[in-house]
Amino acid sequence: MLNIGVIGFGYWGPNVARNFHAAAGAKLVAICDFSDKRLALAQNNYPFIQGIKDPYELIRSTGIDAVAIVTPVFSHYELAKAALLAGKHIFVEKPFTATSAQARELIDLAERKNLRIMVDHTFLFTGAVRKIKQVIDSGELGKLLFYDSVRVNLGLFQHDVNVIWDLAPHDLSIMAHVIDKKPLAIAAHGSIHFQGGFEDIAYVAVEFEGNGFLAHFHVNWLSPVKIRQTLISGDKKMLVWDDLSADEKVKIYDRGVEVKSSNGGKDGIHELLVSYRSGDVHIPKLEAMEALKAEAQYFVECVEKNLPPANGGQAGLQVVRLLEAADESLKQGGKRIVL
Amino acid sequence: MLNIGVIGFGYWGPNVARNFHAAAGAKLVAICDFSDKRLALAQNNYPFIQGIKDPYELIRSTGIDAVAIVTPVFSHYELAKAALLAGKHIFVEKPFTATSAQARELIDLAERKNLRIMVDHTFLFTGAVRKIKQVIDSGELGKLLFYDSVRVNLGLFQHDVNVIWDLAPHDLSIMAHVIDKKPLAIAAHGSIHFQGGFEDIAYVAVEFEGNGFLAHFHVNWLSPVKIRQTLISGDKKMLVWDDLSADEKVKIYDRGVEVKSSNGGKDGIHELLVSYRSGDVHIPKLEAMEALKAEAQYFVECVEKNLPPANGGQAGLQVVRLLEAADESLKQGGKRIVL
Amino acid sequence: MLNIGVIGFGYWGPNVARNFHAAAGAKLVAICDFSDKRLALAQNNYPFIQGIKDPYELIRSTGIDAVAIVTPVFSHYELAKAALLAGKHIFVEKPFTATSAQARELIDLAERKNLRIMVDHTFLFTGAVRKIKQVIDSGELGKLLFYDSVRVNLGLFQHDVNVIWDLAPHDLSIMAHVIDKKPLAIAAHGSIHFQGGFEDIAYVAVEFEGNGFLAHFHVNWLSPVKIRQTLISGDKKMLVWDDLSADEKVKIYDRGVEVKSSNGGKDGIHELLVSYRSGDVHIPKLEAMEALKAEAQYFVECVEKNLPPANGGQAGLQVVRLLEAADESLKQGGKRIVL
Amino acid sequence: MLNIGVIGFGYWGPNVARNFHAAAGAKLVAICDFSDKRLALAQNNYPFIQGIKDPYELIRSTGIDAVAIVTPVFSHYELAKAALLAGKHIFVEKPFTATSAQARELIDLAERKNLRIMVDHTFLFTGAVRKIKQVIDSGELGKLLFYDSVRVNLGLFQHDVNVIWDLAPHDLSIMAHVIDKKPLAIAAHGSIHFQGGFEDIAYVAVEFEGNGFLAHFHVNWLSPVKIRQTLISGDKKMLVWDDLSADEKVKIYDRGVEVKSSNGGKDGIHELLVSYRSGDVHIPKLEAMEALKAEAQYFVECVEKNLPPANGGQAGLQVVRLLEAADESLKQGGKRIVL
Repeated sequence: MLNIGVIGFGYWGPNVARNFHAAAGAKLVAICDFSDKRLALAQNNYPFIQGIKDPYELIRSTGIDAVAIVTPVFSHYELAKAALLAGKHIFVEKPFTATSAQARELIDLAERKNLRIMVDHTFLFTGAVRKIKQVIDSGELGKLLFYDSVRVNLGLFQHDVNVIWDLAPHDLSIMAHVIDKKPLAIAAHGSIHFQGGFEDIAYVAVEFEGNGFLAHFHVNWLSPVKIRQTLISGDKKMLVWDDLSADEKVKIYDRGVEVKSSNGGKDGIHELLVSYRSGDVHIPKLEAMEALKAEAQYFVECVEKNLPPANGGQAGLQVVRLLEAADESLKQGGKRIVL
Repeated sequence: MLNIGVIGFGYWGPNVARNFHAAAGAKLVAICDFSDKRLALAQNNYPFIQGIKDPYELIRSTGIDAVAIVTPVFSHYELAKAALLAGKHIFVEKPFTATSAQARELIDLAERKNLRIMVDHTFLFTGAVRKIKQVIDSGELGKLLFYDSVRVNLGLFQHDVNVIWDLAPHDLSIMAHVIDKKPLAIAAHGSIHFQGGFEDIAYVAVEFEGNGFLAHFHVNWLSPVKIRQTLISGDKKMLVWDDLSADEKVKIYDRGVEVKSSNGGKDGIHELLVSYRSGDVHIPKLEAMEALKAEAQYFVECVEKNLPPANGGQAGLQVVRLLEAADESLKQGGKRIVL
Repeated sequence: MLNIGVIGFGYWGPNVARNFHAAAGAKLVAICDFSDKRLALAQNNYPFIQGIKDPYELIRSTGIDAVAIVTPVFSHYELAKAALLAGKHIFVEKPFTATSAQARELIDLAERKNLRIMVDHTFLFTGAVRKIKQVIDSGELGKLLFYDSVRVNLGLFQHDVNVIWDLAPHDLSIMAHVIDKKPLAIAAHGSIHFQGGFEDIAYVAVEFEGNGFLAHFHVNWLSPVKIRQTLISGDKKMLVWDDLSADEKVKIYDRGVEVKSSNGGKDGIHELLVSYRSGDVHIPKLEAMEALKAEAQYFVECVEKNLPPANGGQAGLQVVRLLEAADESLKQGGKRIVL
Repeated sequence: MLNIGVIGFGYWGPNVARNFHAAAGAKLVAICDFSDKRLALAQNNYPFIQGIKDPYELIRSTGIDAVAIVTPVFSHYELAKAALLAGKHIFVEKPFTATSAQARELIDLAERKNLRIMVDHTFLFTGAVRKIKQVIDSGELGKLLFYDSVRVNLGLFQHDVNVIWDLAPHDLSIMAHVIDKKPLAIAAHGSIHFQGGFEDIAYVAVEFEGNGFLAHFHVNWLSPVKIRQTLISGDKKMLVWDDLSADEKVKIYDRGVEVKSSNGGKDGIHELLVSYRSGDVHIPKLEAMEALKAEAQYFVECVEKNLPPANGGQAGLQVVRLLEAADESLKQGGKRIVL
């Protein structure tokens, strides 16, 4: 039985607590929050837990095997480090850390102490992303051409990070999970509209090695409409993921492109012969399980069996590295930052 | 009566010819095309016209007052220059020219000879763009925040230009028409997927002076789905233009953002207070007139009354300057190009 | 303070209990369910309530002022009658009763004992229906032409009633609420596809007095897609309610019809001159309050202030009368049943 | 070579003429219209044809083998009869005739004279209906449950027929084509909103022999929105046809229903066990050919090879019989009319 303590019972913490409470092989034993009110709520929902105000007290507690850190990003490193030093496995809210140096240090530490790190890239556990990964891994799409993601709405400003750190971790972690290619460079363009604020809209382009594959992300807190759409094109088939669709989130288009070079154009001019192919559309049924539920169970399994999670420290580091480089590019007016 | 000759009777030329034929005060008198087959078709449709194979013969013809140049972009400059030198007004397919130097030379020439140039930015004459301009000009949207345009589909590759030169002139000309701000710099990211080809997907970010207004364009020949969507947000209202919608192309959202700076946050920390407002949506009825018909009539009127067209040489130059800078940025790996 | 007991803690009962628990001026004091498991759940959620297995025990309890009856329709009459006889106000799940005779008897009884009946026509309290009523009451739509409702999905078969009794009470109660006209006759067509079952798809037409106003309802458990759409046309404006739309549930179309009779047609033939008008579309923002919450509060208010609820016994009777007549028509092969 | 004359060059006639002009093995030789203006237009488009004002002159012309009758329905019988008597094959606009007696007489006459009748049920030749027929014929949907069609818009009033005769022939001919079952009875409900007019909205229910299959049609000239949607459910799969969708007109849902009767319910009560199944969705690519083009070619082929057209006189009669019965039902307040 894995005894779990949760630090942070604000917006997302209650979901994490609920799912670890329900996970087979796990036992929710403690919840920590600075706020008396939030702590009272936690104890009302789970009368059997220990309510703790000081996170380090929770971390030191000998009755706890693993700590879920569901706090703002700036606090992840300190809490995670303390937890690892105290011999606890950690489940950390995304983004993993505020800098890639912090992420690397935590990864090293966990390795030395043989502890598991899992970063809460929840979307990887949705039916949609599982299906997308399966489709791409099968080779059905052919040679991949591009990945285009739009995640915009009239949204809540975060007070401590810009829109890239707020929204892009979802999409960067998904992309890293389903696209088996190495990013080479990144460029970001964004804008701050309100004095004293952070970038509230941004565009991030990620260059990859070989073959012209390009990824692009539009994140935005100022859009009148909510859009959650990802296009992934291959030369054989193409895929659209619309996360707001109730029943038809993932569509696979039997559409493709074929290109032949030819020197036989009229006037002997070199000519590119492009042909497009358009066929049926297929909308696969997706698994309906709650993503966080599956992820919590997976954490328990990884700890029990000593397995490296797919969304472990390295996956978390990769996302942080991209976020960090995007920030660097923003600061330098969109300069291409080599990764 | 304005006597008009049309050079080029391929894909778009027949539409230009048809609308000048129908325009009050204009008379279609000659059509030129290299291809015998196209020329025969033109003469079949308009038995009264002169069919001409050599464009310079048409340009020199004394019975012609204005020349519509509906040919590939690489030929615009030579034909336009010859026409202006021969004392003809010109209507030129977009993009105006292949370089901004050419555009400037033609503008100067036309000025010296007191001739009109109109660049065929057809979209400006659609009911949707007219309405959008009217809404923005009225100040209804408040302080403008961003302009985001997506124009993607599984499309025909042009053989002579990249996807930016093919698709972005639409959106750049629309943006320049409705947004009364000066672009400062541009950055473009794109990818060539097929050897010997041109960029087939691209992202273009345009920075503006003052206040953080940002414009962004996604153009793409490799998308499984067709999207023609533009978001224009202000801090008072926001607008979405979906050109593929049959009856609801332009939607105006009574949604906005208000931001107050405050030093009274708890712990005395400076805090940004953001509030979002969400109200009704309004879908205005749009004028139903064919855009090119209105544009052709406007050309006749500008020539007759000696008026400078809104889509004149300067408007054409502005688009070419942006395209040129986008190409420059592409070549330098997304470098920010100051305009 | 109004002390409330809830009978039935199955699918809908928990929502009723939760909202009476939260209503100002009300106190949830007892919950009754046959099932030990459901009762335990109720007591877990509301440890302070009395859990009762026998509904008549709850009804007789002197500490209770009002009873919410959230049970299958066949049991409504007996329970409601007992409650009224015991001097309790009643809140009854829709449809009110299994026959109109029962409904009339309960109405009489409540009147004699000066008690309130409210039938749970929840939809009347949604932001959408409130807005629709307001628009129609304002006269904005002009002369009403028709009401067309489609409520279909691949749904759960009820074991005890047909699809009309399952789904149409929603739409019949809404129509009766927003349309201030008297129904004259009804005809229903339906089909039973599975031996031993009830009608699983049905079409119900309701004729009204005067002017050709017609209402029609399509209810269906066998549709591959879920549709919840109502069209209400007037000769001045027209309204569409799509309950599945997230943000644009109610659209008001500035579209209309004008008809002039003329004898001046060519050949002296009498001719009908019809002209259609098409203008803007308006999407009003709707109130976001949970419907059942507003309804529970309204029940408390009606009891406290001795007010006749808009969704009182008469409203309930009206719906039952239409359901009953629809069943009669079904049995007689679609015969027109005068109301 | 089949020499064809077209009577009627109003709204639809030009399309018929154009497609017979283009059909292999056919020659458009004459066009007839009462209006000088329409006739001049016809001769301008097809300078080689004979323009005729008197339809009987065209019908008698010895140089003509087949006559296309594209006139209002009241004139079909007289013209068709004259044409058959003159030994011409006929292509008749839908609905075939104004009464079923007329249709029967024409069928007999054509048989006696060994001439072909084709009724212009154009929709049967669309890619969508071809695909739907193929899917149903394959048995993929399982046992058919219902056919539900909605064809509504803010439309042009016909001056000579009601909305059923105007719009329903499309859907009735499609249903008869794809559903291999015998209709037993019909009931129609409708309303006349404008004095001196015809029914402008109507609902038509068609009962079939055996198994509870039911068809229903909603036709309407007063709807604010345009809907062209047909649901066809089987117990194994279900199909939705949305004719307004650009690329996804036909969707096949792998959804179904299974019902088992059981006597083992608790309390020994007979219970119906229903289970729903939900799987993938498939959107087949449709043939893109213009329907009328395919139909015109098919007419030529049927005449040349002496084949009975699928959309021959009997198909036309079937639709007229349903329209006639619907009218009868309307007149009798929705009475069930046995076919």
